[in-house]
Amino acid sequence: MGVVFAKRMSAMKPSSIREILKVTERPDIISFAGGLPAPELFPVGDIALAAGRVLADIGPRALQYGTTEGMPALRSRIALEMETRGVGCSADDVIVTTGSQQALDLIGKIFIDPGATILTENPTYLAAIQSFQCFQARFRPVPTDDEGIVPEAVDELSRDADVRFLYVIPNFQNPTGRTLSAARRKSLYEVAVRRGLVIVEDDPYGRLRYRGEHIPPIKALDEAGRIVYLSTFSKTVAPGFRTGWAVAPAPIRDKLVIAKQAADLHTSSFDQLTLERYLRDFDNAAHVEKVRAAYGERYAAMDAALSSSLGSGFSWTRPEGGMFLWVTGPEGLDTTDLLRRALERKVAFVPGADFFPGGGGENCMRLNFSNSSCETIREGVSRLADLCAGR
Amino acid sequence: MGVVFAKRMSAMKPSSIREILKVTERPDIISFAGGLPAPELFPVGDIALAAGRVLADIGPRALQYGTTEGMPALRSRIALEMETRGVGCSADDVIVTTGSQQALDLIGKIFIDPGATILTENPTYLAAIQSFQCFQARFRPVPTDDEGIVPEAVDELSRDADVRFLYVIPNFQNPTGRTLSAARRKSLYEVAVRRGLVIVEDDPYGRLRYRGEHIPPIKALDEAGRIVYLSTFSKTVAPGFRTGWAVAPAPIRDKLVIAKQAADLHTSSFDQLTLERYLRDFDNAAHVEKVRAAYGERYAAMDAALSSSLGSGFSWTRPEGGMFLWVTGPEGLDTTDLLRRALERKVAFVPGADFFPGGGGENCMRLNFSNSSCETIREGVSRLADLCAGR
Repeated sequence: MGVVFAKRMSAMKPSSIREILKVTERPDIISFAGGLPAPELFPVGDIALAAGRVLADIGPRALQYGTTEGMPALRSRIALEMETRGVGCSADDVIVTTGSQQALDLIGKIFIDPGATILTENPTYLAAIQSFQCFQARFRPVPTDDEGIVPEAVDELSRDADVRFLYVIPNFQNPTGRTLSAARRKSLYEVAVRRGLVIVEDDPYGRLRYRGEHIPPIKALDEAGRIVYLSTFSKTVAPGFRTGWAVAPAPIRDKLVIAKQAADLHTSSFDQLTLERYLRDFDNAAHVEKVRAAYGERYAAMDAALSSSLGSGFSWTRPEGGMFLWVTGPEGLDTTDLLRRALERKVAFVPGADFFPGGGGENCMRLNFSNSSCETIREGVSRLADLCAGR
Repeated sequence: MGVVFAKRMSAMKPSSIREILKVTERPDIISFAGGLPAPELFPVGDIALAAGRVLADIGPRALQYGTTEGMPALRSRIALEMETRGVGCSADDVIVTTGSQQALDLIGKIFIDPGATILTENPTYLAAIQSFQCFQARFRPVPTDDEGIVPEAVDELSRDADVRFLYVIPNFQNPTGRTLSAARRKSLYEVAVRRGLVIVEDDPYGRLRYRGEHIPPIKALDEAGRIVYLSTFSKTVAPGFRTGWAVAPAPIRDKLVIAKQAADLHTSSFDQLTLERYLRDFDNAAHVEKVRAAYGERYAAMDAALSSSLGSGFSWTRPEGGMFLWVTGPEGLDTTDLLRRALERKVAFVPGADFFPGGGGENCMRLNFSNSSCETIREGVSRLADLCAGR
């Protein structure tokens, strides 16, 4: 007799990003494929000091079991961070999660029955698709344009079905790099209130703006208790800690805590306390400023390289922050096939089709610029452009 | 319109352990309720050195994203540890998990369809019940006696239903403290092979034996690829790292990796590397020896205190290791009610009923002895005995 797996597993395949990343770990490949922050900017020395101070000052309690919601000191510090983003909340509203990815898993767990409908931007974040697929969601992709998701379309698409939530990345979206305008955030919130719709607002990149003005999160408007806001320290400090957070209305927060308790009891005490100490003792705002400046330069290098080398059939987004831009090629281009040939020339990206839960995007690709120097970016784009031009 | 949660959430309530732990955080309460290791024994200084060395030697890579399976160096070290337990395996067979608790969640995710049957010891680990409940498992509790789970009963109960796996804790079981005999491990494995049954062997406490001889895990017999073995650094180093592992046959391991990727991408890089460096540079075997000796003394203190103070209607297990013993009171005793009165006398335990997925155990209680000094144990047992005797 064979091993019987749950039905949900038939929908879950190893992601192409993951398979691609394996190849692109080879040092001779210029990779625009991953979503890695620039490691040379990580505040390693400050983290080392913070970790040492935690163990010296707190001792064994830093290595003991903790509460599921997270360490009180870190939750308070996250509430302060939320204030700088325009959202008033208290430590009680915050749950620490094992990276934002766990928040997506918990969201899936508490909301999605098999066959229930969820709305997402089209295209949307690949790993969110995977998390929600695991709970056998039915995806209803919502049209987007240069200003982000179209609120009227959300209104229309949430009219009839059993829609559990809308998942949206308003700032420097993954994969497109686009930002949802302030006017649309307001309209979207109004649709949520009118339709009784929960919005999951995923904001990993919001602090990485290198041009233009900060736009407050949708959560800043949330008097009705409809918005679950997610963020992470992965892009502003370092991803290796797997420490993110959710700010949620009380009834949703309580369910998230129950689900998290069964999922991993709590997030690493040592990591939480090390992050809290780092944020307390060092100037993270100055650190983020450095990251922003570097990513801004890298973006500009990529944009300039694309402008000077890609043919007329190609267009791309001009993100004001974040880590990605999105290239659309001529009708009929197959970027999955292009990737195979790109790897022979030792350059990599993620084909667009992976980000469309309902199909499409075959002529698109996502390029990451945060993890390469400007020089590497110019060389990689040149290889890519040669390939696209049939050179 | 209200928020619609998934059906699975109606089965998931905050656990009583969790609610109890909140009360027992008060310093004036003697708590035999939690499952906390003794923090005063944590190797804090060595961990501080290990963490410092990781950041000094490896630098930013220690804070970057990693692969879902876990850091190669830690997986190799876990394979060595498995060898000392009697299981030959390679680093490739190991997946690092965010604590054993995450392994339970992933097991539930890959195996359990709503309504599918799983077998567990009766009683069994409370947080495993919660994890599997979350996937809407149907529990079929298997009778146990002083030698542990009864293999003939497993054979009988796996005959007809759609049984996805048997979950078993062979060493110093939670909650009873009982150990599955070598003969029964063999019989159980034979049943698994004959019935095509997957066994999930959860072994957090195996290294904490303070009396008798080590019995190799069921996994040591696993030529047929039927056993998923789980363990953790929570009891041999410290739980705050939330770092555990699974050793699984390839087809199951592959599914676990896919599920873990969607759950949290990977376990903290910093924690994994700090643990690996600690295990490499320091004498963890000597540390575990210290922990064993202390728990052995604490167990003996609790056993002696119970012997000299509890009335004739009470009996309890004599574990050879681990952190818990299990008291059975006279027929008609309601330990949930007893707990309420115990808290007034500032002593706490976990009522037995919580550990029985199919009901029962109202006259039982679990006592933890790892997290109290011998003196505290004597005082706590004396309070409890007075209460039981109506004094």
